Amino acid sequence: VPADRPGNDPVDLVGRARAGDARAVARLITLVENDSPLLREIAVLLLPHIGRAQIVAVTGPPGVGKSTSTAMLVTALRQEDLRVGVLAVDPSSPFSGGALLGDRVRMQEHATDQGVFIRSMATRGHLGGLAAAAPQALRVLDAAGCDVVLIETVGVGQSEVEVMQQADTTVVLLAPGMGDGIQAAKAGILEVADVYVVNKADRDGADQVVRDLRYMQSLRPAAGGAGSWTAPIVKTVAVRGEGVGDIVAALRTHREWLEASGELTLRRVRRAAAEVEALALESIRRRFGDIANSTELARLASEVADRALDPFAASDRLLSALQT
Amino acid sequence: VPADRPGNDPVDLVGRARAGDARAVARLITLVENDSPLLREIAVLLLPHIGRAQIVAVTGPPGVGKSTSTAMLVTALRQEDLRVGVLAVDPSSPFSGGALLGDRVRMQEHATDQGVFIRSMATRGHLGGLAAAAPQALRVLDAAGCDVVLIETVGVGQSEVEVMQQADTTVVLLAPGMGDGIQAAKAGILEVADVYVVNKADRDGADQVVRDLRYMQSLRPAAGGAGSWTAPIVKTVAVRGEGVGDIVAALRTHREWLEASGELTLRRVRRAAAEVEALALESIRRRFGDIANSTELARLASEVADRALDPFAASDRLLSALQT
Repeated sequence: VPADRPGNDPVDLVGRARAGDARAVARLITLVENDSPLLREIAVLLLPHIGRAQIVAVTGPPGVGKSTSTAMLVTALRQEDLRVGVLAVDPSSPFSGGALLGDRVRMQEHATDQGVFIRSMATRGHLGGLAAAAPQALRVLDAAGCDVVLIETVGVGQSEVEVMQQADTTVVLLAPGMGDGIQAAKAGILEVADVYVVNKADRDGADQVVRDLRYMQSLRPAAGGAGSWTAPIVKTVAVRGEGVGDIVAALRTHREWLEASGELTLRRVRRAAAEVEALALESIRRRFGDIANSTELARLASEVADRALDPFAASDRLLSALQT
Repeated sequence: VPADRPGNDPVDLVGRARAGDARAVARLITLVENDSPLLREIAVLLLPHIGRAQIVAVTGPPGVGKSTSTAMLVTALRQEDLRVGVLAVDPSSPFSGGALLGDRVRMQEHATDQGVFIRSMATRGHLGGLAAAAPQALRVLDAAGCDVVLIETVGVGQSEVEVMQQADTTVVLLAPGMGDGIQAAKAGILEVADVYVVNKADRDGADQVVRDLRYMQSLRPAAGGAGSWTAPIVKTVAVRGEGVGDIVAALRTHREWLEASGELTLRRVRRAAAEVEALALESIRRRFGDIANSTELARLASEVADRALDPFAASDRLLSALQT
């Protein structure tokens, strides 16, 4: 083992991650993904160093230019000297190797940039799913000093919805000529948008997409008062980087609004509640799984079969055994 | 309310059910199906009066003559002066009104027979599914003095498998000329058969079905020793009642083997274990559902959002609150 290769000591790993060591960041996320026994210690060590990053979900229908937009957004954020994390949660993403060469090359330059952490996560394989692993992975990137962490998701499945719920700001990408507006509305992703991006804005129909979005917004009355937010609509040509700076500006404006309105706290509390509930449920499931194979259940089942005990009373006793 | 209409007093209902009052039996099963708050009291009251009935599942592919066979089996059991319960768990069963008129007429005579209790149960709608309600419904019929309770199931879905697991004896029906043997083998129902019935035995190919079954049995070596059971193969023409008496004989032989070999106890313990585990799991789910909406989770989520607490510690505290 080379001396500079990080081991599994959490204190060492978190210290290195905070100093910007990309390998320590990668190692910590791997431990998180693998549901390591060190998970709890890592969570405690990260605690004082999190809460600074703006978590941004980038989503939209396939073919809308999501990978390209994400790559160009990284470039634009770096131009403002912001530290950026990227969590890609689909195998067709450039970060996990399934995308077009053009996109890969475009991200390649970021791969050698000390101010960018790129990480892909599989949507399968983790106990409890991505919903369980993603919050901790985001905390690692947050503690590593990222100003913005981009979550790139593909598709509109349950995994995407769960991961999007981890974001402070959700960017929904659309493009002209694909019927995307309608499809996206059907999929419900328009309702979660904090920023709209109409990509491929040099194509026919881009203005129509913008009009459609404005019309849909007009149908849904804002909550009203100083606390309400109307999602801005940004036009981009991501392949040429046009308009991407406007996304960065929209993200900043949204972050300011989140803090000023108290919505940031509301969203984080809501996320924390979902996460704690999921962890508790998983913990019960594991403990109960053990009990189901226990001698206690076997003993109670014998009593029920002997008609010495009714099944409801047996269930009560099993639960009592579970709770000691 | 007429004076003879049973109320919901469990002591009264169980007393009447034991005396053979069909309306009290029906009322108790309805309470069980509806997950009544009286469920636990009913379970305790039934306890001294159960364990006598032989629970027999009758299953097989559609079109094999299951409804007719069940009706004729009731007739044959009644001829031996045995008290019979029928629990039909599919809407296409004659007992719940979806079958051919001929079958209905055939069961109609049993409907006025004081020694037969007929009850249909829906496969949907009950919290926890049929698997949760069926064991209690079977106990009601058992306590009402049934010597045999027939469970008639249709299809090879999860519900059928769960209900068949409630049986002491499983009868698998086949018929010639339908490729049933192969289909049934694929569906795995051959493996659970304690008695095979080749119905429509007057048709071409019946002997081939019998040979196929014997061949399949030869491939699966018996467990060996005095304790092993090889499922007998009974040929019937159910529409004419031919061979149905042989099913009754096979059921009796199997019951005797179950008791002599100790397998009856093994099966009942296994069933009790599954039932107690399911009840405990459902109980946890309900309790946890309440806690998920509790102020405790809201309070813990705020602490996590404030970075005063990591989510794993919060989960631990939530579980502690759950257990008090």
